[in-house]
Amino acid sequence: MGSARSNGEDSINYNNNSREVEIAVMEIVHKVEVPPPKSTINKLKLRFKETFFPDDPFRKFKGQTLSSKCILAAQFLFPILSWAPNYSLSLFKSDLISGLTIASLAIPQGISYAKLANLPPIIGLYSSFVPPLVYAVLGSSKDLAVGPVSIASLIMGSMLRQAVNPNTDPYLFLHLAFTSTLFAGIFQASLGIFRLGFIIDFLSKATLIGFMAGAAIIVSLQQLKSLLGIVHFTKQMGLVPVLTSVFHNTNEWSWQTIVMGMSFLGMLLMARHVSMKRPNLFWISAGAPLASVILSTLLVFLFKAQNHGISVIGHLEHGLNPPSWDKLILNTSYLSMVMKTGLISGIISLTEGVAVGRTFASLKDYKVDGNKEMMAIGLMNIVGSCSSCYVTTGAFSRSAVNHNAGCKTAMSNVVMAVTVMVTLLFLMPLFVYTPNVVLGAIIVTAVIGLIDLPATYHIWKMDKMDFLVLLSAFLGVIFISVQDGLAIAIGISIFRVLLQITRPKIVSLGNIPGSDIYRNLQQYRDARRVPGFLILAIEAPINFANTTYLHERIGRWIEDEMDKGGKIASMILDLSSVSAIDTSGISFLMDLKKMLEKRDLQLVFVNPVGEVMEKIQRANDIHHFLGLESLYLTTGEAVMSLTSSVK
Amino acid sequence: MGSARSNGEDSINYNNNSREVEIAVMEIVHKVEVPPPKSTINKLKLRFKETFFPDDPFRKFKGQTLSSKCILAAQFLFPILSWAPNYSLSLFKSDLISGLTIASLAIPQGISYAKLANLPPIIGLYSSFVPPLVYAVLGSSKDLAVGPVSIASLIMGSMLRQAVNPNTDPYLFLHLAFTSTLFAGIFQASLGIFRLGFIIDFLSKATLIGFMAGAAIIVSLQQLKSLLGIVHFTKQMGLVPVLTSVFHNTNEWSWQTIVMGMSFLGMLLMARHVSMKRPNLFWISAGAPLASVILSTLLVFLFKAQNHGISVIGHLEHGLNPPSWDKLILNTSYLSMVMKTGLISGIISLTEGVAVGRTFASLKDYKVDGNKEMMAIGLMNIVGSCSSCYVTTGAFSRSAVNHNAGCKTAMSNVVMAVTVMVTLLFLMPLFVYTPNVVLGAIIVTAVIGLIDLPATYHIWKMDKMDFLVLLSAFLGVIFISVQDGLAIAIGISIFRVLLQITRPKIVSLGNIPGSDIYRNLQQYRDARRVPGFLILAIEAPINFANTTYLHERIGRWIEDEMDKGGKIASMILDLSSVSAIDTSGISFLMDLKKMLEKRDLQLVFVNPVGEVMEKIQRANDIHHFLGLESLYLTTGEAVMSLTSSVK
Repeated sequence: MGSARSNGEDSINYNNNSREVEIAVMEIVHKVEVPPPKSTINKLKLRFKETFFPDDPFRKFKGQTLSSKCILAAQFLFPILSWAPNYSLSLFKSDLISGLTIASLAIPQGISYAKLANLPPIIGLYSSFVPPLVYAVLGSSKDLAVGPVSIASLIMGSMLRQAVNPNTDPYLFLHLAFTSTLFAGIFQASLGIFRLGFIIDFLSKATLIGFMAGAAIIVSLQQLKSLLGIVHFTKQMGLVPVLTSVFHNTNEWSWQTIVMGMSFLGMLLMARHVSMKRPNLFWISAGAPLASVILSTLLVFLFKAQNHGISVIGHLEHGLNPPSWDKLILNTSYLSMVMKTGLISGIISLTEGVAVGRTFASLKDYKVDGNKEMMAIGLMNIVGSCSSCYVTTGAFSRSAVNHNAGCKTAMSNVVMAVTVMVTLLFLMPLFVYTPNVVLGAIIVTAVIGLIDLPATYHIWKMDKMDFLVLLSAFLGVIFISVQDGLAIAIGISIFRVLLQITRPKIVSLGNIPGSDIYRNLQQYRDARRVPGFLILAIEAPINFANTTYLHERIGRWIEDEMDKGGKIASMILDLSSVSAIDTSGISFLMDLKKMLEKRDLQLVFVNPVGEVMEKIQRANDIHHFLGLESLYLTTGEAVMSLTSSVK
Repeated sequence: MGSARSNGEDSINYNNNSREVEIAVMEIVHKVEVPPPKSTINKLKLRFKETFFPDDPFRKFKGQTLSSKCILAAQFLFPILSWAPNYSLSLFKSDLISGLTIASLAIPQGISYAKLANLPPIIGLYSSFVPPLVYAVLGSSKDLAVGPVSIASLIMGSMLRQAVNPNTDPYLFLHLAFTSTLFAGIFQASLGIFRLGFIIDFLSKATLIGFMAGAAIIVSLQQLKSLLGIVHFTKQMGLVPVLTSVFHNTNEWSWQTIVMGMSFLGMLLMARHVSMKRPNLFWISAGAPLASVILSTLLVFLFKAQNHGISVIGHLEHGLNPPSWDKLILNTSYLSMVMKTGLISGIISLTEGVAVGRTFASLKDYKVDGNKEMMAIGLMNIVGSCSSCYVTTGAFSRSAVNHNAGCKTAMSNVVMAVTVMVTLLFLMPLFVYTPNVVLGAIIVTAVIGLIDLPATYHIWKMDKMDFLVLLSAFLGVIFISVQDGLAIAIGISIFRVLLQITRPKIVSLGNIPGSDIYRNLQQYRDARRVPGFLILAIEAPINFANTTYLHERIGRWIEDEMDKGGKIASMILDLSSVSAIDTSGISFLMDLKKMLEKRDLQLVFVNPVGEVMEKIQRANDIHHFLGLESLYLTTGEAVMSLTSSVK
């Protein structure tokens, strides 16, 4: 911010006629103003609006007729209405191609992810049919490909398994999964409706990178069961118990399975590598999983490999999603566990969905409304829980393929859903001989993309504290548990923010020669101390959590100056960066003034901003702790005015 | 902060020779500097020091010889060593008078507060004997009068009563109280040793005022039992159950008790009122409780009132504190409950003790080291728990009396302890006929001072959000429970701080005519928009919790400007008040730059401070997102330079 000299004032420091000096000083000193008064109600209204409606979703409605308001409202609730009327054949061609492409990914991934969540494979296909249709009507992203995702599947599977064994009690487990999905949906939709979407912002990028990488490793470790053909595998998720289990059961390793697994894994990773090097060859990695499924199924069928130690999916139901609202378990002792599972898997899948939607929206330069997306994803899961689906969201890998394949609207999700429907109705018997080892290879290939080494390196270079958050999320996930790792990382992130407030920065300012600029002495080597002054700037809101610290720290600062033999007559406190203050903060300013008066030091404040100025004014009306000469608009003016008054 | 014009530059805006202008511009534009490089280790060291050793407790040790270092260390650990060697008879005279005065308060209050905690009355006296002696050796406050206090007694009593009935299981209850005291002490001492004293700063003034007032009402309501002579009284603490219980048992009300209670209550309140009006008559309110006890005991004894419906304390043990380390219960199912009780009563009593110490220290202008006080109070409770004491701290009312009576050192605590010792040894039989109703009146008079209406009014005037915190603490305590009220208030306080970060203020700046100062357009009515520029200042650290909001909000700001028909060529982002940034924040700045480039807007940053500049620099080394002309030291220079480059 700025400080000033108007034209004729350069003479001040050189003019010995003190009378003239004083007049000149009076002329240039600007007043600190109090913002125009506003009623408490108006202030609360404004704050409410900034907190919950920062995007001002109703601005389009202003000044419209009733009928166009109705149309806008309908379009607001059902984004499909804003694009469907202008939908054309050429758009459909693009959507058809991209829809078929993501369907070829969605079918094998759906089956695999359902297994990851300890659910029957067909649930993964059900979940790739209904939710995409719901999203096509409600969602505002053009690129999001909806369906089950690896991390949410892992979380739901592992949390429910702590209460129920999916092998001995498959129906109870399944019903609890539907119920958790219902709660996930309710929770997601409520966040959107109550405009609390900012809650997911507390998952920082560093937290997510660490968490995702940890989860990817946990998921991959789980696949060692099918990749090695182990029968007796641990029920735990951690790195240590899984590796122990793997190396205690080497006698169960099946070489046929290992050979098949490694070949297909190699093929899939190669396909992924090619597509990453050449984005226009995206269809290679997009088609590879389905090709692997078909090829491996044929191999098993031809060589009767299921009799040679290779485990296969086996018989699957066929037909569309049966209703499941009668299977929701709401009145038992499982309720709190199910709600917790819904909450955590809901918030994680929501974070993924919203982040993916925003990423592609900014690539194509359109806007995605976070709160509306939350409602869409939430409703999609509520509907899903009543039609035999488990938790779904926008998947990063499939959305990327969708985008690369040239999708234009959410119609690509409809195409995908129809393809899955055809599969469900007619093609299910073909999966009987699909080997589990290939599903494992597909999962490993998918989750390996979640480990983002370049971003990790970038965070390490940029900010060591962020790296610590990332590392703790990662280590927490692989050594403790998925939920605890997440909780630890969020805890550290919030603690770090609170610490910034508890220990705000105080910097000492100096004058940059030949100017009226005052800057941090530590940062600007040119800056020079002004003799006789201690100029400090506080760089944080002043509130209950830091007043004690500020008091002690500033006291020590003055003592340090005294020890160095510096003679100080005045202290200037630059409040430019103090964006807010509470009653404890005001008491602190008054106490500081008193403390300095006892030491014969003058204290002046510089540039208190709106809210802070208002409260200082109000406190001064009651306590009269500030003289007329205690507030300046700029540090330069304060120094000039105090220097001349000392003379 | 400041912006500059050096001598010859006023001609810029009026000079049409563009060549000359450019040279002039180059001359005055100051560079934003990166702070001198520091290693990660050094930075972490510095941050560690600022977080845990902001008061630099070892500065005195620097440059001393080994022997004087030893003396300083001993004085650091045992503050008594710094004042005892110079102790004189005249100091002792003052301490003797103040010590006897606080003893006359401590004896009746000790008995009363022990009853408040559902403990035998003598425990209150034990707790006024050993802890003051410990504090005299370890404490650094000269005014603190140590002993049991009302709020901690209430909390401990009510929390333990949830697990054990003090009437049917008095010994178990007593032993749990000792154990809780041990944990309170361990917890308090650890906070001091690990320099985590700032944790108590999270109890804001508003929280404490609301909490104290609520607790005072709860405590007073409990006294209705003895004041009305009710025998069957509820075990609950809330406003509703207590009033219900009182009016359901009107048949138990005893008129003799009520008359006696009201008379003594009236007398005590009158004494309090006189002392408040005339501080030099402090001895009236200080002596009144003991006088009431003596008078009422005599009355009961003379009129055999115990036979007429007035309940009395009855027989009390005599003798000094028996050891109680063998009564600590550490290996049972009560452990977690006892630890929780210790934690909460410990932190509350610590807050009171440290706040009282600081208040009187600032009145007499000496220093109290918060972390050292915590160690002293903690050790005092650890020793107390092994010598039949329950939780103690520095009491506000008694410390005020101590201060007014002219105490000079912690010796007044020793005098008080000796007086209590004499009482314990020889005077206990005298309390047999002391009526409970007088103890109730003493408690009510003591806690009524905790309701601070002027401060409440002040907070209402200053800050409505703080008032909301106060109110929720108050209502939470009286309608839900003491602990929940406290938890709710702390939760709201922290949520409010987090909200400030999630929704940081963005203000639009304008030029103050005739100067180079740029200030908030809303606050300064003189300030004028600069045509062609959108100048925004962000007033908070930029981090993961607010980047999404900032992105959306700034986007909307630009749209609003466009809608108003303003033509903008450049956006200036003033980062002066952004005290910190994390990797999400850096990504946000890069995204913003990209977003604005798409709209053909130039984005420049003004005055990034130390850490922020460092990270921008580091990110720019990797991503090269900033041009040469993207950083300015002041808004004025940015406007000038961009205006001239457009020309």
